Amino acid sequence: MPLSYVGKACALLERYNVEDYDLVRIITTKGELVGRIIPRPSIFDDEHIIVKLPNGYNIGINIARIVEIRVLEKAYQREETIPEVKFREDLPYVPLVVTGGTISSRVDYRTGAVRAYERPEELLDLIPELADIANIKYKPIFAEFSENLTPNHWRKMAEKTSEELNSGARGVVIAHGTDTMHYSAAALSFMLVNLRKPVALVGSQRSIDRPSTDAVLNLIAAVKVAAQSDIGEVVITMHGSPSDEFAWVLRGVKARKMHTSRRDAFIPVNSPPIARVTRDKIEIISDYRKAEENSKVEFDGRIDDRVFLLYTWPGMSPDIIESIRSLGYRGLVIAGTGLGHTPSCIIPSIERLVKDGIPVVITSQTLFGRVNLRVYETGRLLLKAGVIPGEDMLPEVALVKLMFVLGHCDEMNCIKEMMLKNMAGEISSSISMRDFPPCWVMR
Amino acid sequence: MPLSYVGKACALLERYNVEDYDLVRIITTKGELVGRIIPRPSIFDDEHIIVKLPNGYNIGINIARIVEIRVLEKAYQREETIPEVKFREDLPYVPLVVTGGTISSRVDYRTGAVRAYERPEELLDLIPELADIANIKYKPIFAEFSENLTPNHWRKMAEKTSEELNSGARGVVIAHGTDTMHYSAAALSFMLVNLRKPVALVGSQRSIDRPSTDAVLNLIAAVKVAAQSDIGEVVITMHGSPSDEFAWVLRGVKARKMHTSRRDAFIPVNSPPIARVTRDKIEIISDYRKAEENSKVEFDGRIDDRVFLLYTWPGMSPDIIESIRSLGYRGLVIAGTGLGHTPSCIIPSIERLVKDGIPVVITSQTLFGRVNLRVYETGRLLLKAGVIPGEDMLPEVALVKLMFVLGHCDEMNCIKEMMLKNMAGEISSSISMRDFPPCWVMR
Repeated sequence: MPLSYVGKACALLERYNVEDYDLVRIITTKGELVGRIIPRPSIFDDEHIIVKLPNGYNIGINIARIVEIRVLEKAYQREETIPEVKFREDLPYVPLVVTGGTISSRVDYRTGAVRAYERPEELLDLIPELADIANIKYKPIFAEFSENLTPNHWRKMAEKTSEELNSGARGVVIAHGTDTMHYSAAALSFMLVNLRKPVALVGSQRSIDRPSTDAVLNLIAAVKVAAQSDIGEVVITMHGSPSDEFAWVLRGVKARKMHTSRRDAFIPVNSPPIARVTRDKIEIISDYRKAEENSKVEFDGRIDDRVFLLYTWPGMSPDIIESIRSLGYRGLVIAGTGLGHTPSCIIPSIERLVKDGIPVVITSQTLFGRVNLRVYETGRLLLKAGVIPGEDMLPEVALVKLMFVLGHCDEMNCIKEMMLKNMAGEISSSISMRDFPPCWVMR
Repeated sequence: MPLSYVGKACALLERYNVEDYDLVRIITTKGELVGRIIPRPSIFDDEHIIVKLPNGYNIGINIARIVEIRVLEKAYQREETIPEVKFREDLPYVPLVVTGGTISSRVDYRTGAVRAYERPEELLDLIPELADIANIKYKPIFAEFSENLTPNHWRKMAEKTSEELNSGARGVVIAHGTDTMHYSAAALSFMLVNLRKPVALVGSQRSIDRPSTDAVLNLIAAVKVAAQSDIGEVVITMHGSPSDEFAWVLRGVKARKMHTSRRDAFIPVNSPPIARVTRDKIEIISDYRKAEENSKVEFDGRIDDRVFLLYTWPGMSPDIIESIRSLGYRGLVIAGTGLGHTPSCIIPSIERLVKDGIPVVITSQTLFGRVNLRVYETGRLLLKAGVIPGEDMLPEVALVKLMFVLGHCDEMNCIKEMMLKNMAGEISSSISMRDFPPCWVMR
C-alpha cells in the first residue's frame, strides 16, 4: 500500500497495486515513461504523483492524464535482490564518510519532521549513477544534525579522512548537516595539514525522499570532485542555483550558509568559487591548490575550544568582555561593524584582555570585504589596544582558526603570527571585487 | 596652494595659481570643460587632476592633455561671497538631520584618516542640485561615527525627526554613519509610531571629497525621497550598484550592511527594495505604506537596552547563557544556525532563562530566510523551552525590537505577542523568493 499518497492519487495507485518506490511504466495521454514512485507528503494535493526518472530527476504527473500504470519491479523485491555492487578496477575508491544531517535523513510523512535514515545505504541505492563515478564505500562515523557538532566531532572527521586518504582513497566525500558545514569545512582545512587530495563536504537542504531534494545533484558533484578533480583542498559542494543546474565547489574557508531554506544557500565569500559541477563535467573557475597523487596528509587535532565569538551592537556594555575573562575563555573573536569597528566604550576592556594574554581578533559582521583598522579613529584605537586584524576572514573561520592556533601556541606573538599567516586560503592576498563581484544586484 | 596634489600635477596647478576647490576652465587637447578642482590623496599618481563637473560627477584628467587652466572663481572667495540660499515657495521643506559618519566627514590627506567636517554646510555647497529639490535646512544633532551610537542617540534622532515632521517638514533626511545605520533605521521604525511621511537615512562609504564618493548620489536620492515620494516609512537610501547608476530605497527593518567597503554595501534582506532612485526619477518596485499629508507622528522612546545578542557556534558552552542572567540582561536574541537551531546542550539553560521571565528570541545567522522550529527535533525542543521564533527578522532587527518591546512590557505573554506582531514591516507575511530572489548567482 502506498504510504504517503492520499485521496484520489492513493486510490489510483492502489488500483494498480503500486507502492512507494516501485519501478513502474506509466502510460499517459501524452506518452509513456518509466521511473520509481516517490513518496509525497500528504500536505500536498491528491491529484499528482511523483516519479523519479532514470536520469535522477523527479517529475510530477497529473493523475487525470494517467491511462495505465504497470509495475515493472516491486520495491520490496528490489531490496531482496539488490546485487552487491562490484568493485570496478577502472574507477577510483572514494569513501562516503557520513556524519548525519538532512542528507542522511528522510521525512516522516506522518509528522512532517525529518528523521535519520534507518538504512543509510539507501542513499546510494537511490542514486545509481554514483556507481559509475567511483567505488564508493559507506563509512558512517556518527549521526548528528550539525547544530550539535563540537570540535571533538571535527577531530573525528579529520582523523577518519586522513586515514582514508593515506590508505588508498583518491578523495573523500563527507555527508554533513548544512547548519554548521562551513565551520566543519574550516576546521578540516586547518586540521588536515599538507592536504593534497580532494575532500568534499556535501549536504542537502531537503531530504532525498522529497521531490525537491537537492541531495542527488550535490552528492553526484561531491563524488565527482573526489573521484575526478585535481583539487587538493577541503571544499563544499552544494547547489549553485535554485534549479538542478549545477553545484558550486567552494573553498571550505571561504563559504557560508546564507539562507535558512534555499537549496542554493551556500555562497562564496571574499573568494570566487573554485569550480562548478554539472551532471556532465567539472568547470574550473579559479585557482586552487593542486592535488598530488602520492601525497600523505597529516592529521593535526590540537585545538582549544575555549574561544568566544562576539557580534557587537550599538550601545553594548563592556561587562560581557569582563565575563569572557572570568569564564576562562582563552581567546575572543569579535565581529565588529563596517571595517572592523567596535563601540569605543568596550575598547579599554579589550585592551585589558590583550594585556592579560587573551588574543582578540577583529572581523566584520558585514561578512563580505576586508577589515581595515587604519581608516577611522576607532580602528586605530583598537590596533593600539593590541587586537589582531582578521583581514578578510569570516568571523566563523576566524573563530575556528583561533581555536586551532591556541592548540599550538601560548605566547601572544606566536598567536598573532599564526593568525595573520594564510594557512589554507582563509586570508586572500587581495580581493578583486571587480573580477568577481558577489552579485548584489536584484532583478 | 593646492593642499593635496603632489609632483607634476602640483607643479601644473601652481603654475596657474589653482587651489583645491577653485572653479576653473580647463582647456585640453580634446576640448574645454568647467568644474571645481577636487583634492586628491597623495597615494595616487601625480599625472591626473580630479574635477567635479556641474552635473555632480567627478572626472580625472591626464595633465599631459592640459593646454591651459583659467581660474574662474577662487574657493576662498566663494566662501566669503556665498549667497544665503533663498526659500523657494515651490519646493517642500526638508531638514537634513546630521548625526555624523563618513557622509559628514572628509579625508585628512596628510594622514589618510577620515575626520569630521569642520564646516558641515559644505556638504550642501558641494551638491548645488539639492537646492532645486527641496528647501533644505542643516540640523546637526550630534557628530558620532555610528559604531559609537547607543539607544540614547536613537531616541534623539527619533525625537528630532518627529518634531520636524509635526512642524511642517514634508520628509526628513538623516545623515548617518553606515556601520550601524540599519540598527538605527530599525529603532526609528519602531519609535516613530503612526509614521506616514518619508524618513530617509543616508550615508556614504567614501567621503564627499573623494573622487569615488558615493555621497552625492545617495544624498540626492534621500532628498528626493523626502521631498517627492509618498513613502510613509523609515528607509535607507544607499548605492544600488558599484557605479553611480542608482540608489536603493530599502525598508529600514529589512536591510543590512553586507560589505566593509563597497559603495553598494547595503542590500535588502527578505523583502524587495521599495524603489530605486536615479538622478531623474523614483521608480517604485514594491508595496509600501503610503504617506498621508496631514498625518502626525508620535515619538515613543520607551526602550530597554538590556538585551543581549548571541550568535551560536559549534561546541559553545552554556556558561554564557548563565552569565547573561547574572549580568542583569532582561532579554536574549539568539542568531542560531539554519532554520533557527542552537546546540542542544544550551537548550536547558535557555529554558531556565524563559522560566525566570527573560524572553529568548530565535533568529538565524544565515540572515536570509525565515526560521522554522517545527522541522527538526532541535527546533521542537527550543519551542518547548519557550523561545519566541523571530520569523524572518534579521538578528539585529530582533535585537532592537526586543529592546523596544521591553520598554513597554514586563509580562512574557505581552512580550511574546508584541514580538510576533508585525509593527513596521519587520515580519513579512510571506517571502516569495521566486518573485524576488536575492541574486546569489555569480557570473
